[in-house]
Amino acid sequence: MLLTRIKGPRDLDRLSQEELTELAAEIRSFLVDAVSKTGGHLGPNLGVVELTIALHRVFESPKDKVLFDTGHQAYVHKLLTGRQDFAGLRTKGGLSGYPSRAESEHDVIENSHASTVLGWADGLAKANEVLGRTDHHVAAVIGDGALTGGMAWEALNNIAAAKDRPLVIVVNDNERSYGPTIGGLANHLATLRTTDGYERFLARGKEILERTPVVGKPLFETLHGAKKGLKDFIAPQGMFEDLGLKYIGPIDGHDIEALESALLRAKRFSGPVIVHCLTQKGRGYTPALEHEADRFHAVGVIHPDTGLPVKTAAASWTSVFADEMVRIGRERPDIVGITAAMLHPVGLNKFAEEFPDRIYDVGIAEQHGATSAAGLATGGVHPVFAVYATFLNRAFDQVLMDVALHKCGVTFVLDRAGVTGDDGASHNGMWDMSILQVVPGLRLAAPRDAEQLRAQLREAVEVKDAPTVVRFSKGVVGPAVPAVGRIGGMDVLRRPAADVTRPDVLLVSVGALAPMCLEVADLLDKQGISSTVVDPRWVKPVDEALAPLAEQHRVVVTVEDNGRVGGVGAAVSQALRDAGVDVPLRDFGIPQRFLDHALRKEILAEIGLTAPDIARQVTGLVAKLDGRLDSEPAAAVD
Amino acid sequence: MLLTRIKGPRDLDRLSQEELTELAAEIRSFLVDAVSKTGGHLGPNLGVVELTIALHRVFESPKDKVLFDTGHQAYVHKLLTGRQDFAGLRTKGGLSGYPSRAESEHDVIENSHASTVLGWADGLAKANEVLGRTDHHVAAVIGDGALTGGMAWEALNNIAAAKDRPLVIVVNDNERSYGPTIGGLANHLATLRTTDGYERFLARGKEILERTPVVGKPLFETLHGAKKGLKDFIAPQGMFEDLGLKYIGPIDGHDIEALESALLRAKRFSGPVIVHCLTQKGRGYTPALEHEADRFHAVGVIHPDTGLPVKTAAASWTSVFADEMVRIGRERPDIVGITAAMLHPVGLNKFAEEFPDRIYDVGIAEQHGATSAAGLATGGVHPVFAVYATFLNRAFDQVLMDVALHKCGVTFVLDRAGVTGDDGASHNGMWDMSILQVVPGLRLAAPRDAEQLRAQLREAVEVKDAPTVVRFSKGVVGPAVPAVGRIGGMDVLRRPAADVTRPDVLLVSVGALAPMCLEVADLLDKQGISSTVVDPRWVKPVDEALAPLAEQHRVVVTVEDNGRVGGVGAAVSQALRDAGVDVPLRDFGIPQRFLDHALRKEILAEIGLTAPDIARQVTGLVAKLDGRLDSEPAAAVD
Repeated sequence: MLLTRIKGPRDLDRLSQEELTELAAEIRSFLVDAVSKTGGHLGPNLGVVELTIALHRVFESPKDKVLFDTGHQAYVHKLLTGRQDFAGLRTKGGLSGYPSRAESEHDVIENSHASTVLGWADGLAKANEVLGRTDHHVAAVIGDGALTGGMAWEALNNIAAAKDRPLVIVVNDNERSYGPTIGGLANHLATLRTTDGYERFLARGKEILERTPVVGKPLFETLHGAKKGLKDFIAPQGMFEDLGLKYIGPIDGHDIEALESALLRAKRFSGPVIVHCLTQKGRGYTPALEHEADRFHAVGVIHPDTGLPVKTAAASWTSVFADEMVRIGRERPDIVGITAAMLHPVGLNKFAEEFPDRIYDVGIAEQHGATSAAGLATGGVHPVFAVYATFLNRAFDQVLMDVALHKCGVTFVLDRAGVTGDDGASHNGMWDMSILQVVPGLRLAAPRDAEQLRAQLREAVEVKDAPTVVRFSKGVVGPAVPAVGRIGGMDVLRRPAADVTRPDVLLVSVGALAPMCLEVADLLDKQGISSTVVDPRWVKPVDEALAPLAEQHRVVVTVEDNGRVGGVGAAVSQALRDAGVDVPLRDFGIPQRFLDHALRKEILAEIGLTAPDIARQVTGLVAKLDGRLDSEPAAAVD
Repeated sequence: MLLTRIKGPRDLDRLSQEELTELAAEIRSFLVDAVSKTGGHLGPNLGVVELTIALHRVFESPKDKVLFDTGHQAYVHKLLTGRQDFAGLRTKGGLSGYPSRAESEHDVIENSHASTVLGWADGLAKANEVLGRTDHHVAAVIGDGALTGGMAWEALNNIAAAKDRPLVIVVNDNERSYGPTIGGLANHLATLRTTDGYERFLARGKEILERTPVVGKPLFETLHGAKKGLKDFIAPQGMFEDLGLKYIGPIDGHDIEALESALLRAKRFSGPVIVHCLTQKGRGYTPALEHEADRFHAVGVIHPDTGLPVKTAAASWTSVFADEMVRIGRERPDIVGITAAMLHPVGLNKFAEEFPDRIYDVGIAEQHGATSAAGLATGGVHPVFAVYATFLNRAFDQVLMDVALHKCGVTFVLDRAGVTGDDGASHNGMWDMSILQVVPGLRLAAPRDAEQLRAQLREAVEVKDAPTVVRFSKGVVGPAVPAVGRIGGMDVLRRPAADVTRPDVLLVSVGALAPMCLEVADLLDKQGISSTVVDPRWVKPVDEALAPLAEQHRVVVTVEDNGRVGGVGAAVSQALRDAGVDVPLRDFGIPQRFLDHALRKEILAEIGLTAPDIARQVTGLVAKLDGRLDSEPAAAVD
């Protein structure tokens, strides 16, 4: 095995081209073998094996910065930088599924939201300039899909303007993000890919160059100069050069020698350069290549030969949404769907199949998803924008200023809300119920089970004059949790015993945590503490019946799968203050810090978001109010 | 006067080209006369007189949607759609400085944040398609500066992909946003502007076309087809056509006839078209044209002949920041400045003059501002990104996932925080202290006077491992408010009388509201209610000394110039809960709704953020706690 002898990037230097090809094959079989056991991002990494090898041959990490956008394509990078124990990939204590500065000095960006890398690269290149580090290089790898994101454009516009600040942009063009890349840019890249005359010309230029050594002039400049002089005879230069960016390509992204040559030319150039590499997502693994939807973008545990899942998935929140969306679409011709490059993951594929004229994939472009939704609503249709909770952060300003300010009837469906776990800090959906609290008029639903999800989605799309949000967890939907009554708009999930005149605790349960809250109530019961459990269903605005109900209890407790700061607990607290109800309140949720990757249940245990933890603390508070304790027990964590 | 006869856009139809030219001149002198009396956006509107006339001649508003990006360029549109009383412009009850749906059915977008219009247009065009409204058109006007914003790119990428969905994009190219437009795109537009061969070719094509009528084929398609066939003989088509967008231009944006002709061709085309118009910001008004910094982008009350301000401005928060930034820059060579196309308005111009190699104007691109700042910090320099508070919303995800997750030492300076008033809902900076609360590790300072601003800015740039924020108000900085002591990190601004053993009220004052809070304390004093007034200086995280101090009082009151939901009051409330301190708290701030334009002091009075209002409510709460009142007095507003 060559792979086991690679302890760091410089070990690549002594390998021959034949050995590098062998190494690439070893890495591919390692990836299929390892990721099929743990789950993870398989397709993207199979596509960048040769590219990553070439990058680490040409650039000297960590002095040079080799940056990966949306770091799920960094597995090969991990293998080449001393991290070959993939047994615990994406599990507690094991390797992260993304770059991690705690793991290696070769890792720089941990953010798994797309399209950031060019901004980082621009900043790092500027820092090199300010500090006079002329021998430090920056190379940033970005997918064609991520180029559809606005911040990538903002960065390109800036990078292009600084003609003498070196920076290598590697466009990893596999024609896909999760699914196929959309939009004008995708069409343009296709043009570049198929510009035969251009390629032939470049090849000829190279030949001429090889026969005619030019002293003191970098290879690329010479080539480029020649090319410009002949521009009328070949295809247009393309938008990158229109912006002022030098362009090298297209390069076969599975030809290590060609990649090295191109990257070396780019590295030696004294300004920003785009290296356009053509790769194949899922390369070398038939089950991935045959999977048209996403080329095994991310997989669970699979059989390595067939690529088939080892466990059959139970009904997920996503699938409940997907089916109900189709039913609503049949009844309401004014309903359209929007996705930001994640048609399948958010479950809009079924809707798209049945209503191909009423679905919009906007690319990795949440801002545009939100503002075009405002336009759609103003034009008289009702858009449902389904998106991962954490990615909606990208569109906060647009939700506020376009959708809410204009009182547009747009429904946002937030999937993967709350602790998601194994994808690490930037995939947890722990921000939405806080930042959306500030949006005037916005209504937010957190359904507790499948039936509620269906019902609340229908309630949401009925609202014509304000944004609505329906947010739910990742994964398998739990058992039905029936209501035993209703107070105002809130479902009562449990009442205190009939003989209790003033119950101790009002437990406000948010979304999927309902079963846990009922367990808390059981545990409190055993301590002789009586409680009412309500599910507000719509957590914003706070139900008007909540404050009067709270006043009938001695303590209010809120439990939510969201950051504690500014979330539902804070909103309930404010509603009580505004009503002049000064009943003590305790709010349970996710501590406001970035969480390391682990299983969801491991994280919940670690942060004390479990029934025993909550019951213990509430018992302590009641004891304090009774005068039986001087102070409350400490929280499990911050 | 022709202008007074224009009651609506259709009144333009009967005017001859000569009369239209006369009308344009009338509008210009009206604008200079009116805006010099009230203040407002003068330069941008002087630039779009002919363009707006042509748009309303060609498109049939309100059936067709005529949309303006960053609506400060909509004054001419107001004049042509029945709104000619500019006496109360931007004042309470008068015309808004932006489009306003409450004013007119011709207005669609009220959001004054830049780069949104193409998203709106895409949505409206899609709605026309879904609902089969084939005779409805959408025309969107966007400045070249606004094209540097990422969401404009996201929209272009989507619009270009729908080749048979009509949409007219008018690029109002004046080579500026506030100041000159930056980046690769600006350079590319310059190329298009100066492509003489291209213009000559188009002119020739038009001649040929006029001599050879083509039956059944739209003018533009024919022209365009011809052009494509001849592409090797003329200049490159440019990036818009690379994306798949038809391009018409460049057009003289002050030639009504040429504009109408181009817009008509565009309107008749069966897909998306870009019409590239060259205009001159400040056109026809010498003082504006001579003002290189921003061409009178926005002015206060001025003398119409000279353009000089009628009142000399007192020292502003901005100027205090500007001067201190220069001093810090002299001491620290690792300090760099970042602005998003607003070098002068945020006061970084002085820094830029002294340190031209350490300033980055990233365009209207707050996302890139934040993420490139993360890169700069990772590369070893300390960036100070100065931006209007409301515009930072655009970069929320980047502040969270790039800057904070990576523990980058980046300082954000938020100008125009709190109620700003006359620019209306989307300019008020009432969101930052709420949404930034959720960002782990971020530290937020709200200086109360000039001395504190200088001191806290210096404290902020010392922090190396977390984002820091310094936020301050618009306008004139108030008098110095001295501290009389310190508790923890908090300044004590006023203590209760020495003989008070348990004071009634702990008043937590945030930022510039300190003088008002001291006034509240005086008013309470007259009611026999004792109080302590503290300024936490750093409002996030909540000072550890606050909860113990609160426990020594009967009531805690927080006062902030920020939305009430999730702001400092909510954070203090949570800190008290977490410390087990259940002292009643009342939080005063801006009600969580969109505020109409008016003077800042008028808005503060309207929302009850005044000393007498607060004192009245706190007095009521104390009376309730004393048992002298059954319930608290109602708040002045929501």
